[in-house]
Amino acid sequence: MNDATLIPARTAGPRPGGRSARVQAAVHQAVRELLAEGPRDALTVPAVAARAGVTPSTIYRRWGDLSQLMADVAVAVLHPEGAPPDTGSYRGDLTLWLEQYLDEMSSGPGRTMLRDILGASTEQNTGRCLFYCTQQIDAIGERALARGETPLPTDAVIEGVVSKLMYGILFAPSTPTNDDIGRWLDALLGV
Amino acid sequence: MNDATLIPARTAGPRPGGRSARVQAAVHQAVRELLAEGPRDALTVPAVAARAGVTPSTIYRRWGDLSQLMADVAVAVLHPEGAPPDTGSYRGDLTLWLEQYLDEMSSGPGRTMLRDILGASTEQNTGRCLFYCTQQIDAIGERALARGETPLPTDAVIEGVVSKLMYGILFAPSTPTNDDIGRWLDALLGV
Repeated sequence: MNDATLIPARTAGPRPGGRSARVQAAVHQAVRELLAEGPRDALTVPAVAARAGVTPSTIYRRWGDLSQLMADVAVAVLHPEGAPPDTGSYRGDLTLWLEQYLDEMSSGPGRTMLRDILGASTEQNTGRCLFYCTQQIDAIGERALARGETPLPTDAVIEGVVSKLMYGILFAPSTPTNDDIGRWLDALLGV
Repeated sequence: MNDATLIPARTAGPRPGGRSARVQAAVHQAVRELLAEGPRDALTVPAVAARAGVTPSTIYRRWGDLSQLMADVAVAVLHPEGAPPDTGSYRGDLTLWLEQYLDEMSSGPGRTMLRDILGASTEQNTGRCLFYCTQQIDAIGERALARGETPLPTDAVIEGVVSKLMYGILFAPSTPTNDDIGRWLDALLGV
């Protein structure tokens, strides 16, 4: 990365992404407000457009349909806001992050987000879900290396814990627990 | 089970479930036909009702909304039609069934079914997905016991293979392969 990418050049011409980014922010904000005010089923593209101050065709052109817009908003909410908390050990960091992830995904709003993401007619948002997880587990692994610990490959954590946790949330009659996370980590870490 | 449950009593009164079962069959059939004829987005409750020869309110009363009807049809398609094929060994039976399950779920129609089931506003159908898997893996385990083999607990197969396979189909950029199934079974069976 060099200065040119850090400091956008100010010219007289249109700034790429300027209007586009404002439209996205206004539409996402409108969806979040309408979700907070009324039932999910009452939310329509014209209602979102009116609230965001754009035309419905702007929304259709950019997002395709309501399900794709809802998935886009949902996955934006999932975007992690910072590095996972540092508890002083690899196992501690993984445990805390996984427990928070379980808590978030299995909550009412988390399940609604997952429904929006998995019910949408494109798969790009499910990829972003996995990407965010991978980023966080990578960060936990890098911190462990800096401490002199030996972290697992991120893929092993995804396969050995995240996939079981998500399958349990989506398909099992009872939500996985923190004890399940501990048991899966034991198996993975060979404890 | 006794004779009374095997042979329904013929009386002059209404037979419980008779009309209800016919309505369900007609509506499911109408959805499958309309899906085969045109795009998924064009499918509406009035169109399904017209094709099935029922009123839209019959559908709303019974299924709630279109997403729940689609999920109900999807999960009915998932209902296994018989016992998993017998290959002569526990590992062989598990491998073949898992490979078929992967093939079915990761296909275009399989992914559409999963989207309908996971995007629906109730969770009862995701439970039926897991129930069908459990039934098939139980059957494979019982056949192994009858051969004198030592099968794994069904839960271990769900956690160790099915959950990874489904997470991969739903979230990963590339679909799991038969090699992944082999690798997961190796780990599970301690090979």
